[in-house]
Amino acid sequence: MGNATIKDIARETGVSIATVSRVLSNSGYASQEVKEKVLSVAKQLNYQPNAVARSLKIHRTNTIGVIIPDISNSYFMKISKGIEDSIRESGYNLLFVSSDENANKEKEMLQVLFEKRVDAVVLATADESGKMVKTIKSAGIPIILIDRKLKGTTLDLDLVEEDNICAAYQLTNHLIQQGHTKIGVINGSFKVSTGIERFMGFQKAIKEYGIEENQDLCYNGNFTEEDGIEAVKHFLSLEEKPTAIVSFNNTMTFGAILQLKKSGLKIPEDVVIASYGEVEAAQFLTSPGIISIHQLPYEMGIRTGQIILDRLVHNIKGPVHEKFTPKLYVSD
Amino acid sequence: MGNATIKDIARETGVSIATVSRVLSNSGYASQEVKEKVLSVAKQLNYQPNAVARSLKIHRTNTIGVIIPDISNSYFMKISKGIEDSIRESGYNLLFVSSDENANKEKEMLQVLFEKRVDAVVLATADESGKMVKTIKSAGIPIILIDRKLKGTTLDLDLVEEDNICAAYQLTNHLIQQGHTKIGVINGSFKVSTGIERFMGFQKAIKEYGIEENQDLCYNGNFTEEDGIEAVKHFLSLEEKPTAIVSFNNTMTFGAILQLKKSGLKIPEDVVIASYGEVEAAQFLTSPGIISIHQLPYEMGIRTGQIILDRLVHNIKGPVHEKFTPKLYVSD
Repeated sequence: MGNATIKDIARETGVSIATVSRVLSNSGYASQEVKEKVLSVAKQLNYQPNAVARSLKIHRTNTIGVIIPDISNSYFMKISKGIEDSIRESGYNLLFVSSDENANKEKEMLQVLFEKRVDAVVLATADESGKMVKTIKSAGIPIILIDRKLKGTTLDLDLVEEDNICAAYQLTNHLIQQGHTKIGVINGSFKVSTGIERFMGFQKAIKEYGIEENQDLCYNGNFTEEDGIEAVKHFLSLEEKPTAIVSFNNTMTFGAILQLKKSGLKIPEDVVIASYGEVEAAQFLTSPGIISIHQLPYEMGIRTGQIILDRLVHNIKGPVHEKFTPKLYVSD
Repeated sequence: MGNATIKDIARETGVSIATVSRVLSNSGYASQEVKEKVLSVAKQLNYQPNAVARSLKIHRTNTIGVIIPDISNSYFMKISKGIEDSIRESGYNLLFVSSDENANKEKEMLQVLFEKRVDAVVLATADESGKMVKTIKSAGIPIILIDRKLKGTTLDLDLVEEDNICAAYQLTNHLIQQGHTKIGVINGSFKVSTGIERFMGFQKAIKEYGIEENQDLCYNGNFTEEDGIEAVKHFLSLEEKPTAIVSFNNTMTFGAILQLKKSGLKIPEDVVIASYGEVEAAQFLTSPGIISIHQLPYEMGIRTGQIILDRLVHNIKGPVHEKFTPKLYVSD
């Protein structure tokens, strides 16, 4: 019985491996009840900790840092919920920090998480944070990129993302097939891969149909509601107004719809809206008429959580590259 | 010049006191440029660290933990944004954790933040976490309660909240004055003070008008969208349906509106909706007809940030009790 493992204790007690590990290393939190149960079963099974394994695992803090660019965007909150739900039983806790779409702040927050000795980092980057990411990776801390690629690095990192080019292409293609040629584009930030790739998908579609790119019809934003508002103001000030608008994230779409309503314009009668990302509120429109790309943030979060557990608990090596394909959705 | 203080260096260099402190104690993050500037000015002013002051301050981690019950609720995200904006210049960083409206998880997260040695904790409690809060307070870490009171404790803690009774009273009073006597109530959790107090405000109003409390017209939820959906299903199944519905948070209101639309009912022609908390999406309704209590989460967050800085930087003692009075808003 001297070869009982942490796994055996977890099975016998019905608590997670991570919790057993916390109790046995006397680190992190566990309720008194769980502690007693684990210690009693460990004694019963005559558990002998493996010194090498312990020295490797004892420095764990059972926390995972999650860096998101916008804490008020429901897309990132759904990703966070997915991660939370998939690691809930594992005994790990999540620390969320916001970079506010700011590269300097992101670097600072990576440093903070590193100092807090988190066991893994999930990063939806607002920019290329190559150097700090390298430091963290060198320290043996797994980093999982979510939604956005890291520019200018050759590090082999786990990545869970969407097929942005394909989805933006589909969205634009649908508008063109409806007969639109004057399409206003509300771009996200060109500092992040999703902003760049969605515009690439747009360009690919108009090129295929021989439509020329028109700078007047491109508004370059930074993924905020205010950008959507400003973009619509700009489009409505043009002599040749667009007949359709494609917006490259949910928050900008929300702003655009608000401003269109304020200007007394009807969707889709006066202008058609195509959104990369769902806008839940659009369900309240009398005739929704919103064409949208339905993203899968919750599912992406679940997958991210699984990858974290693969790296931290199951000792499965990476990197993996998961690409989700969001679906085009046309409401009645 | 031997009496120069950290404040003097901060003024001369134009960086925050917290950053100067980090550089001089060689802890936490500061850019190379800032480090050089601070050290050069310190030398120039012949700064001599006060050993007692240093020993008191050196253990700071420049992080503040924020515990919120629902990371996908825009109300708490606006509070978070307010805190973030008001401490931005101070050099402190925020760590957000979610309790998922779960008392056990909240206790665990308090423990995690304590282990991470945060300098202060902001808590929107999901329950009475008296014991762990006491431990943290005993360790000299300021705790600021936001939105929700802590039950069953006599600890003198800072508190930033709304006048829930008054606002819920106003909301109900408005419905009664419109002639409604059959009012459906969607309650939040009775485990938290806001849930209890809003219902008390409702009770106060109907009592004043001699309207009897009707159990069939009370749906007790837990502040989720699903609760709003289920509450409306329940109300519509009744023989005597309510002519108005009062919902005690924004998320439940969203669910209620969705379900009413799905059931083919018009707002406000078929049923009037009164919401504690704004629903941004309601701006998309053709005839909004939503009566709502406009909360001030961003302002509450700003005030919370100021209190944090009072405790950590300006050395001003508490506790303070701030009560915001949200306003009744009737859309055209």
